[in-house]
Order: sequence, then structure tokens, then C-alpha cells
Amino acid sequence: MARIGIADTTFARYDMAREAIDEIKKAVGGVTIVRRTVPGVKDLPVACKKLIEEEECDIVIALGMPGKEEKDKVCAHEASTGIIHAQLLTNKHILEVFVHEDEGATDKELIDIAINRSREHAKNAVRMIFYPDDMTKRAGTGRRQGKEDAGPLTDSH
Amino acid sequence: MARIGIADTTFARYDMAREAIDEIKKAVGGVTIVRRTVPGVKDLPVACKKLIEEEECDIVIALGMPGKEEKDKVCAHEASTGIIHAQLLTNKHILEVFVHEDEGATDKELIDIAINRSREHAKNAVRMIFYPDDMTKRAGTGRRQGKEDAGPLTDSH
Amino acid sequence: MARIGIADTTFARYDMAREAIDEIKKAVGGVTIVRRTVPGVKDLPVACKKLIEEEECDIVIALGMPGKEEKDKVCAHEASTGIIHAQLLTNKHILEVFVHEDEGATDKELIDIAINRSREHAKNAVRMIFYPDDMTKRAGTGRRQGKEDAGPLTDSH
Amino acid sequence: MARIGIADTTFARYDMAREAIDEIKKAVGGVTIVRRTVPGVKDLPVACKKLIEEEECDIVIALGMPGKEEKDKVCAHEASTGIIHAQLLTNKHILEVFVHEDEGATDKELIDIAINRSREHAKNAVRMIFYPDDMTKRAGTGRRQGKEDAGPLTDSH
Amino acid sequence: MARIGIADTTFARYDMAREAIDEIKKAVGGVTIVRRTVPGVKDLPVACKKLIEEEECDIVIALGMPGKEEKDKVCAHEASTGIIHAQLLTNKHILEVFVHEDEGATDKELIDIAINRSREHAKNAVRMIFYPDDMTKRAGTGRRQGKEDAGPLTDSH
Repeated sequence: MARIGIADTTFARYDMAREAIDEIKKAVGGVTIVRRTVPGVKDLPVACKKLIEEEECDIVIALGMPGKEEKDKVCAHEASTGIIHAQLLTNKHILEVFVHEDEGATDKELIDIAINRSREHAKNAVRMIFYPDDMTKRAGTGRRQGKEDAGPLTDSH
Repeated sequence: MARIGIADTTFARYDMAREAIDEIKKAVGGVTIVRRTVPGVKDLPVACKKLIEEEECDIVIALGMPGKEEKDKVCAHEASTGIIHAQLLTNKHILEVFVHEDEGATDKELIDIAINRSREHAKNAVRMIFYPDDMTKRAGTGRRQGKEDAGPLTDSH
Repeated sequence: MARIGIADTTFARYDMAREAIDEIKKAVGGVTIVRRTVPGVKDLPVACKKLIEEEECDIVIALGMPGKEEKDKVCAHEASTGIIHAQLLTNKHILEVFVHEDEGATDKELIDIAINRSREHAKNAVRMIFYPDDMTKRAGTGRRQGKEDAGPLTDSH
Repeated sequence: MARIGIADTTFARYDMAREAIDEIKKAVGGVTIVRRTVPGVKDLPVACKKLIEEEECDIVIALGMPGKEEKDKVCAHEASTGIIHAQLLTNKHILEVFVHEDEGATDKELIDIAINRSREHAKNAVRMIFYPDDMTKRAGTGRRQGKEDAGPLTDSH
Repeated sequence: MARIGIADTTFARYDMAREAIDEIKKAVGGVTIVRRTVPGVKDLPVACKKLIEEEECDIVIALGMPGKEEKDKVCAHEASTGIIHAQLLTNKHILEVFVHEDEGATDKELIDIAINRSREHAKNAVRMIFYPDDMTKRAGTGRRQGKEDAGPLTDSH
């Protein structure tokens, strides 16, 4: 039985994990979900690695909401670097779902991005475990999460 | 018996470790605390790793106070990257508690931030070891340490 | 029989992998190609490592198309760092083929760069596995992929 | 018998190692000092690791003098990151003693910083090996090396 | 018999490896030189690691010529970080010899820097393997490669 890890933070201002978990349950049955919550994004890399190594998750979704200040950008960069490192040490995918607080002008806009991005990446996680060929069918088509797809480049532009 | 490591610096201008230790003792009994002090924040990553591997700590709190110059920001970034790396090599959490000298306008303000951030993260350390479900109850609620909580995003904004 | 891995993304706006695969097939027979598609460039490092360690690829081509915003530059940097790390952990080459969305003024220009860069690096991959001495013959000659070669420095300038 | 490693560079414009070695000899007897010199600061991380793993040093002091240009700052950052990594791979402390060429306005000023910083960190190395509790007594007191101590924050400011 | 590895690129616009190899042969007999050429500087870290681990080189010289654009600076930084990492994983020195295309105003100037830097670091590689004490005699004397030595700081300035 597949196991999907969910790592999220108390720093985030929206419960993105709830969205991701709901999407996974809608998409596929018979999956065990293991969730761990840490203070901030810099605590996510080891939380994800523990979900893989101690909880035997096949894939992990790491959700966070970095602040809008310069130092928050640095934190997010450090977290992302650590998440990539955790993947290299475990040979498992960890999908990073970060919403930066300056991506939306209002709370409403941020919430919409958070919901869409969490759900789209939950779908990606399911595809990557159960239907990897579906990923390749979507290759090079300009998919985005949180906002509208960019779509493929077209020769006529 | 749980063991909590405390790593701090002689560079810092306030004894943040004392606050964290006091908070841990107030929150929970029967915990062994092991403390190591190093010159600056760049010496913290290996100090934390040694606390985990040589002193068998279950979690570590790393406290530091980077200066306000550009080169201090770089030092803090290098230290943070190393602290994340140390966690990935040990599968243990290390809570980074850094107060940047330019976060407060006066000594008084800096001291207040240092006290609050040290104590709030000490509480997080205790939660993560003893009551991990309490972390998940706080997920996505905009918690901050050192300053007032940001709180959750609200649909009506 | 040589095995070449191809890792690409759904974020990219052009199917660069198709170009690389076609070029490899034109250049050399009897090669097995294994392709995996992930959401974005930050997912490529572990995808490449898995192609090497789980699919026994001798070399991997990692194709991606980072966006034009500052945060996309940071993502590309994190991905590149991870791809270098993946190589160090496996002792295999991974050729990074990234086209930045701001490299071309029009869709047409971007497509041309993407095609040329993917094909030129596919040729490099074939050379590196089958004809490594051909690489040394080209050493220091100012080769470029995606755009015109810079050529060697000349004493007379 | 304790072994202290000294790694320095030919790029530096002052013999900082001589100061550190003299300070160690004044502070404590019966210590073996092993010195290795490399071209620049980016060669220091592996030099330090070799001093620990091949020469069995208990602690290493890494001395360098990065230039004043932007690219020198990048070199120093890469070196620092590597020095932290070397510590994590060996579980030994490496005290980084870098003097940036733009820290002083005149040669004289730079020499003074180099002498003081080298000697103060030599004292730290001795404390960390022989008298670790002395480090904790100095925790949070705003110690600096190379320049005057900042001292502790005071409530009345 | 000592083995020296040489890793260079097809991106570079001057055959720096030829200069380094010639200098090594002039300086010392009975050395085996193993050369590998890769596309660009980001491919150098693993090429160097393979020279050490698969070709049993005692030291490696990594030669490259990053372009003058901002993204080339980022590539060089990623390559340097990887080269330091490769050293830490092998406990062997890799001397990085990078000439940035904006270091010289003319092709002629760039060629002069490339020749001098490649030859000076070839001498350093020979010293580090055969005459390590000669490195320490040069410690703190402001040596440069590619341009004139800076020389030691003098008290009278």
C-alpha cells in the first residue's frame, strides 16, 4: 500500500495540508497519509527525510508559506536547497509547495493560490506514484500550479 | 529519558540559552539538558551534530545573534545551510533561533525579541518531542517567534 | 548496451526531450533511452539520480525551462546545485540543458534555442560515452549550445 | 596528546599562522601543531579535512585573507560553506579566521586585525579542547575577534 | 608514480590545459597526466572526482573560462561549490583555475591571464604533491595567479 507523507508548518497562514490531503483522497483510494508539522520551512527538509526513512513514505509533499521580507526569501532558498538534498539522500521525490506571501495582493488571492497549488501538486504526487506515464504526456506543455497554466510556446508568436 | 541539546555562541550579546533552558524546565520534568558554547553561528552546525551524535540528544536548539552588516547576513546564511545539513545527516530536528541585530531599534527591543524567540522555540522543542500532535493542531495558523503571531489569512480581507 | 537517461518537466513550454531523443537516435544505434518527467526543475536532481541508480543509465540529460522572474532564477540555481550534487554521489555525468525564458525575445526565438541546445547536448552525451577523445579535440575552442559558438580567443584582437 | 591543525594560504598577505601558533604555544604545553599551506581560501576545506582525518588533529584553525573585490566575497562564501561541510563530515571543529582586505583602511590596520583575530581564535581553540566550560562562561557576552568586543546588550539602552 | 588529472572544457576559448600540461612536464619527470574534457564548468566537479576515483589521480587541475554575463557568474559559483564538495568526498586537492571573460579587456589580455594562471597553478600542484614545505615557505606572502603578486602587507603603509 502506497504511503504519502505530508509535512507542513505552524508559520504558514493557511492550512494547505488539508487541501492536499483532501485532493489525494479524492484522486485515489488505499493510500496511507502520514502528516508531520514543524515550526517553519527550514524545518521541513529533515521532517520530509524522516517521513521517508522512519515512516516509509513513497513520496512527500512539503507545504510552506514564506514571508515577504528579504530574509524570508533567504529562508525559503535554504529550505529548498535542503529539500533537494533530502531527496538525493533518499532517492524519493519531495514535491515542494511554497506560497510566498507576496504572490497575492489580498488574503483572498493568497488563499486561492494556496488551495490551487496544494491541490495541483497533490495530483502530481498521485501521478508520479501511480501513473508516471501521465507525467510524460504533459511534458513541455507549460503546466503551472497556483496560477493559470502558461501553455506551450507557439511558433506563430 | 529525553535529552535536549543547547548550542549557543560567545558572539551573541544576550544569554538566550538561559531563557530556553528555563522555559524547558518549566514546561516538562525529567529532561536532561546538555549545553555547548562556540565562538559564532558558523560553529553551530557541527556543535549541534556533536550534541546529537556524541551526547545522544533527541533534539537541539541552536541560538545565535548575527550582526547587522552584509557580511553577517552571509555568515547567518552559511550557518543556516549547515544546520539544515546537520539535521539531514542525523535525522534529528535542530531548531534555529537566530536574532539579527537589526531586528530591533534599541537594546531593549532586541532583548525582548531574544527572550520571546528563545522561549517560544523551547516550547516548540518540547512539543515536537513529547506532543507532536499539538504541532499539527497549530498548522497553518501563522505562528511567529520573537514577535506577535501573524495569525491565519482570512477570507474577508 | 549503453543506457541514456532523459529527465524533463511539465513546467517547460517546449518538448525539448523529443529533440534530444531524436538526435541521439540519429547519432548512434543500440542505445536504450529511459525517460522520466517531473513537475519542475527542482525535481530534476533526484529524477536524474534515480535514472542512474535505479535504471542504470550511464549518463543523463536534464532538460528544463526556468521562468523569467527573479524567483525562477533562484529555482534554477537550486536545481543546478542539486544536479552537480547528484553527479558527485553517482560518479556519472548529468548534462544540464536549461533554457531561460528570457533568453529569447519571441516564442520562435526560444523554440530555436531550445531545439539547438537540446540537440547539441545530446551530441555531447553521445561523445562523452562513446568518443571521449572527441571532446578533448574540441577543448578550449569556445563551443556554445543554443546559440552560435563563441570560438577561440585570437591573439590579434 | 592534543593535536591542533593549522591551514593557511599563499594568497594571504600576512603570516597569520605564525601568530596563531605562537599564541597556542604560550597558552598551553604538550600540544602538537601540524601546519599545511594551500594556494587560496577555496583550498582550505579539504586541507582542514585532511588535517583531521590523515593527521589526526582534534581541532583545526583555518586562516585566510580574501581580497576586496566582489568575486573575492564569493570565493570566501564558497570556502566558508566548505569549511562547515568539512566539520559535519568529521565531527571536529574548524575555526575559520578570515580577514577581508577591505576591513582595514591601511596595511597597518589590516595587520592589527589579522594579529588580533588569529590570536583570539587560537585562544578559542585551546579553550574548546581543554576548557570547554570557559566558553559557556563567555556565552552571550558579545565577544569579537579582530576588533573590540561588542559586549552584552544592556537593558538601559 | 604520481598521477595528475587535468579537467577542462569545450566552452573555454583558450586551451589552458595545454599550458598546464607543458608546465608540469617542465617542472618534474615521471608524472602520469590524465586529461578529460567536458562541455562547461558545471561538468567539472564530477569529472574531477572521476579522475581521482577511477583514474587514481593524486591531485587534479580544473580549468575553465566562465562567460561575462550574470548567469555565467552563477554557473561559476555552482561549479566552485561542486569542486570543493568533490575534494571533501575524496580527500584530494583540486586546484580550480578559472579565467572570467571579463578579467581582460582584449583577447590578448585574456590569453596572457589564462597562460599565466594555468602555469602558476600547475607549479602549485607540483609543489603540493612533491614539495609541500615549499608552500608553507610562501605562506602569507600575497601570491597571485594570472596577474602580478600582491605581495605581503607592510607595516609602513
